[in-house]
Amino acid sequence: MNDMHDMTGLPEIDGARLWSDLMTMGAIGGTARGGSFRPALSGADAEARNLFAHWAREAGLALSVDRVGNMFARREGRDPSLPPLMIGSHLDTQMPGGKFDGVLGVLAGLAVVRALNAAGLETQRAIEIVNWTNEEGARFQPGLMGSAVFAGLLPLDEVLARTDRKGLSVRDELAATGYAGPVPAGGREVHKYLELHIEQGPELEKNGAVIGAVTNSSWGCSGFIEIRGENGHSQTAAMSRRRNALVGAAKLILAIEEIGAAQEPAGMVSATVVENWPNNRVNIPHLAKLSYVVVHETAEGRQAIIDRIEEAARRIAEDSHLDIETTTAHFRDRLDFSPDLLDLTVKTAEGRGLSVMTLPTLTAHDALSIHFVAPVAIVFVPCRDGISHSELEWCEPEHATAGARVLLDMALAAANEG
Amino acid sequence: MNDMHDMTGLPEIDGARLWSDLMTMGAIGGTARGGSFRPALSGADAEARNLFAHWAREAGLALSVDRVGNMFARREGRDPSLPPLMIGSHLDTQMPGGKFDGVLGVLAGLAVVRALNAAGLETQRAIEIVNWTNEEGARFQPGLMGSAVFAGLLPLDEVLARTDRKGLSVRDELAATGYAGPVPAGGREVHKYLELHIEQGPELEKNGAVIGAVTNSSWGCSGFIEIRGENGHSQTAAMSRRRNALVGAAKLILAIEEIGAAQEPAGMVSATVVENWPNNRVNIPHLAKLSYVVVHETAEGRQAIIDRIEEAARRIAEDSHLDIETTTAHFRDRLDFSPDLLDLTVKTAEGRGLSVMTLPTLTAHDALSIHFVAPVAIVFVPCRDGISHSELEWCEPEHATAGARVLLDMALAAANEG
Ligand SMILES: [Zn+2]
Ligand SMILES: [Zn+2]
Repeated sequence: MNDMHDMTGLPEIDGARLWSDLMTMGAIGGTARGGSFRPALSGADAEARNLFAHWAREAGLALSVDRVGNMFARREGRDPSLPPLMIGSHLDTQMPGGKFDGVLGVLAGLAVVRALNAAGLETQRAIEIVNWTNEEGARFQPGLMGSAVFAGLLPLDEVLARTDRKGLSVRDELAATGYAGPVPAGGREVHKYLELHIEQGPELEKNGAVIGAVTNSSWGCSGFIEIRGENGHSQTAAMSRRRNALVGAAKLILAIEEIGAAQEPAGMVSATVVENWPNNRVNIPHLAKLSYVVVHETAEGRQAIIDRIEEAARRIAEDSHLDIETTTAHFRDRLDFSPDLLDLTVKTAEGRGLSVMTLPTLTAHDALSIHFVAPVAIVFVPCRDGISHSELEWCEPEHATAGARVLLDMALAAANEG
Repeated sequence: MNDMHDMTGLPEIDGARLWSDLMTMGAIGGTARGGSFRPALSGADAEARNLFAHWAREAGLALSVDRVGNMFARREGRDPSLPPLMIGSHLDTQMPGGKFDGVLGVLAGLAVVRALNAAGLETQRAIEIVNWTNEEGARFQPGLMGSAVFAGLLPLDEVLARTDRKGLSVRDELAATGYAGPVPAGGREVHKYLELHIEQGPELEKNGAVIGAVTNSSWGCSGFIEIRGENGHSQTAAMSRRRNALVGAAKLILAIEEIGAAQEPAGMVSATVVENWPNNRVNIPHLAKLSYVVVHETAEGRQAIIDRIEEAARRIAEDSHLDIETTTAHFRDRLDFSPDLLDLTVKTAEGRGLSVMTLPTLTAHDALSIHFVAPVAIVFVPCRDGISHSELEWCEPEHATAGARVLLDMALAAANEG
């Protein structure tokens, strides 16, 4: 990357400050192994929000919070009546997650406005840095919660009534954070939306690219499997006559893993959630539930995975004398993102002398919600070994800076559009 | 079985009343499929205790409750200074359990004293019908809780501090039932202890026997397995590079099942408990825990099962690039029950014209605790298909009556010993 910006007085990202901010934010809910444990609307999430609000005010931004807790830090434009350019992502993490997933997109937004501030540059449109509530869906489901409400894809009341495993509601826990804002969620125009994110996969690293311009999302869905056997005493019932639901679940976990491995890299699937009843040592489990996520580059591939899992379920039900019911939900169809912004991403990266490639995203991001109300761009930077949703998640400092620089140049262009 | 008792004015069990009591008790916490959901110290357990107390008072018995909630319904003897004969079992169930496991032993005790009352018969020693607190260990662990405290095998304070999965303590939940009694638990002499129980296995049925005289308990233990992988994003991480803890757990569940099947009928083992972290669809599980119970007729057999499970764990850890740690606990060594009472059981059954066999018990019963303070007899009656800890658990009415009749004759003999 060249230093034209530094030398010329053009606005430039302070990479060291961005890195320091990422490490500071990562320490909130920080884990011993270098990750963060900051599920949505937890105490740690509230602290992360406080820090973001502090940094936003420090940068002269005006903070507003909507009813689902989405935070908007606004740098006013020359024409306040024009719809703003938004830059954002999320500060919540998996349990535990890493320091970069989501966080990079929010803090890079702050780095962009600090760069504009330092250069004394105004823009035609306002720029708003957004922290969307509960992108991860780790504690409250579904994920993409705040952005989906903002885009009118989910009703606010339904979302506020959602509860975590302890029975605590989004409504109460949001109120407890102090970020149940007064502003109606959504219902206003957005000019464009830019989201910088770690790739969460290995493609950039494999191809030696620093910037990924994301063309489209993938075909996805979730699947749920209920396995019913018969309860009994685990110390006396004849083993050959047992109808052990957990044994059926184990067979399905392995079958699903095989089905996933056979699809890679075009798609994948793993059973990642298991529940078991009564889950007591002296009882043969009579009910087990599994769930999984499917992702595939094609609609046919997604269907083929579902078909194979259902086939495996039928086979295992018969072999193991169990009743197995499979259902699917949360179908996500492919979205093709703004060709103009894709083009801008590629040209901006090239202008910065950064190696760039186009690629789809396998995972969901808040941009998938905002796509329904404004043109969006997702910009990827590499993460080590493609590892994400992990305490080992890692983004090289120079890649974080590079991504923020591309974001800066794109923001300048988009915020000055008439 | 003969009708000598009915014809001669000797005391006799009212089989119809016993059956009616079993059905009435089973309706407390009754499930749609015919089982009962009455975990220890739940509201349903409190109701079951109320009903037992009502029936005990109706039969003229004096009720006392100790500090761990064990209930003693006493029919006074000619010499109140002599240690009492105890008859009992437990009214708590698995979640869900059946209508007979434990309940039969308590209600048959009531049937015995009702028979003595009806015949106007006194005994030399008092007879106490006992309902032991939390035999099942379904909600609070360990099981055999009340009898173990009574026998001095577990300290009261430690037990009262135990919590269920919601964090509620035995102390608070016991108080809520109204059965946190004033009487110190244990510390008094017991003459002998008789426990009538469904077999929970298939041996009596298989051999056409109505009464089982239990010779000894089996060698048992519990095992715990922790499987550690690495968290990651389930929609992006290369499947071939995943270290999925749940996949390791699935492999172990199946391996343990195979090990169990190979030991049958001398022993068995199943993995029946699983926990998984973070148990969220978009995350590769980084930690899974399993636990299992082992039971075997010999100490060597128990050790062989443990060894094979550890061997499987090592193999799976290596194959699946996981860290697997195995531990064992709750070792239960074989106990040989009173030869005199065993002999009495056999002779009594024969005297009643009932086919009888001797056999060991694979499962634990409160008698295993009381064995440490008094001679005990466990008397089995068949249960259909050997099914227990199940809503399908079933004891034929004539078998319940037969068991209670054997209990009656044994009680008369034992309670009249000087
Ligand atoms: Zn994210
Ligand atoms: Zn029992």
